[in-house]
Amino acid sequence: MAISDKLKGTLILPEGIDIPTVLDILGRGKGLAEYPKATPDQVESLDPLDMIERTDADIIAEMTYTDIKTAEPATSYIKKALRTGKHVVTSNKGPAALHYRDIQDLARKNGLQFRIEGAVMSGTPVFHLAESGLAGNAIREVKGILNGTTNFILTKMETEGMDYGPALALAQKLGYAEADPTADVEGFDALAKIVILSNVLLGGSLKTTDVPCKGISAITKADVEAAKAQGFRFKLIAHAKNDGGAVTATVSPQKLPLSDPLAGVMGAQNALSLETDLMGKITIQGAGAGKLETGFAILSDILAIHRR
Amino acid sequence: MAISDKLKGTLILPEGIDIPTVLDILGRGKGLAEYPKATPDQVESLDPLDMIERTDADIIAEMTYTDIKTAEPATSYIKKALRTGKHVVTSNKGPAALHYRDIQDLARKNGLQFRIEGAVMSGTPVFHLAESGLAGNAIREVKGILNGTTNFILTKMETEGMDYGPALALAQKLGYAEADPTADVEGFDALAKIVILSNVLLGGSLKTTDVPCKGISAITKADVEAAKAQGFRFKLIAHAKNDGGAVTATVSPQKLPLSDPLAGVMGAQNALSLETDLMGKITIQGAGAGKLETGFAILSDILAIHRR
Repeated sequence: MAISDKLKGTLILPEGIDIPTVLDILGRGKGLAEYPKATPDQVESLDPLDMIERTDADIIAEMTYTDIKTAEPATSYIKKALRTGKHVVTSNKGPAALHYRDIQDLARKNGLQFRIEGAVMSGTPVFHLAESGLAGNAIREVKGILNGTTNFILTKMETEGMDYGPALALAQKLGYAEADPTADVEGFDALAKIVILSNVLLGGSLKTTDVPCKGISAITKADVEAAKAQGFRFKLIAHAKNDGGAVTATVSPQKLPLSDPLAGVMGAQNALSLETDLMGKITIQGAGAGKLETGFAILSDILAIHRR
Repeated sequence: MAISDKLKGTLILPEGIDIPTVLDILGRGKGLAEYPKATPDQVESLDPLDMIERTDADIIAEMTYTDIKTAEPATSYIKKALRTGKHVVTSNKGPAALHYRDIQDLARKNGLQFRIEGAVMSGTPVFHLAESGLAGNAIREVKGILNGTTNFILTKMETEGMDYGPALALAQKLGYAEADPTADVEGFDALAKIVILSNVLLGGSLKTTDVPCKGISAITKADVEAAKAQGFRFKLIAHAKNDGGAVTATVSPQKLPLSDPLAGVMGAQNALSLETDLMGKITIQGAGAGKLETGFAILSDILAIHRR
């Protein structure tokens, strides 16, 4: 077993690592060098690429930050793992959004799995659902609320009559939105996710630059109220469809009728509707973010690897 | 391969049966004796129990009618299959509602699977979801809209201001409700399903007589309108929870706040919310009935057996 962290160092212990001990060390603000070790060479400041190559683990859980422009360093780590015989699970959107087909081909060629449950809707199991419960269906179209921050802002604008600015400020105060909210409110986070869903579930080969993307920053309280008066509700909708092999996607604010299963998704929740040939529309709703939820996504992919 | 039907007879052909030919024969109102056969003994009027014993199939798909009082003849067919080395998939609520633990024990003892995706919400994959996507979670509570007929009636009462009687008549006219609507409107169909969910997902050993059950026949247009004015919506809710090992369930009409994911489920749709320890609340919505959907449920369980 091994752990590598940019700030906390690297720890390799073939006989296993005691996780409560690690959490205790990290909780005290210390690095992995503090781990009580049998021999001195078991704590190292190896480059993660060397650690990935050197360990004899079966699975690498890649959980570095998302860089949606380069998908690095994650993509290099993932490819190194697959080239040296390790399955990969990740919660990182970058590699799946930019290089899904390449990485999946590399995994298949080596008889390994590349699993990404945590990259979209954290642990809400959209990929497991398509892979097991809906196996045998052709998925023709997906439509979802894939960004919790913008859904929280739109919910506050409608249910509490807030303007966009104060609703965004509240989202930032509660930790839903970052100091620079651009990636959320301009739709770029949802864009990366719909590209992943298009390529994984609909067999597309979309790039992020192929997808028209509009966020919610131009939506006013008056727009929300006018929609409500007509029986509609504004949602930031990520949509993709396979039209006879041609896969296209968009991200844009849309007025949904209240009868749409996505219209009832309130607050920071996420949801995805899948249009299938045999089962019609199936919708799954759950958390779209969170530490525990992302940790569960990683666990669920590790369990899936062991089940195969 | 073999087919046995009470009215259409029995057909056993070890080399396989051509399904389009069978559908053509049945479409012309004929019986399985019409199937073009190589030798005369391949069409028989065997008792289904003998057919199940005699065939060397790997899987029996049990699809007789549901008798919720006796769970027969389905339970006898299922036990015969498991005792003679065949996996079982079924869309029948009876055996799972009345004898789940017994049948599951028999399956395990013989190294076989007993799968019931079609028994609750037809092919909307609640059991697959719990088994794969949510594996690793403890499910503490489930809450669902499990009967499409009553949800259709309540939707019409709210959105079109209909009284209960005319809404029921419309449901009957459209084929959602049967001539004797008791099983739907008094909650007995939802009751059988929540007993199954309790015993499969929460580890309970409930009997149908353990579950307080109230239907929607006493709900008036005035009740629905008063709830709506307060920002609530009436739904027939099947609910079960595991409280430190004690599993209890109820079926009753409830006023849900519009923020509840189940409140947005309209028309003949079904939905189930699962409360989990790691992922919080996960809700899945989809069709609750239908020929194609039930057929898909059977297919999805057959695929699951092949994946293991």
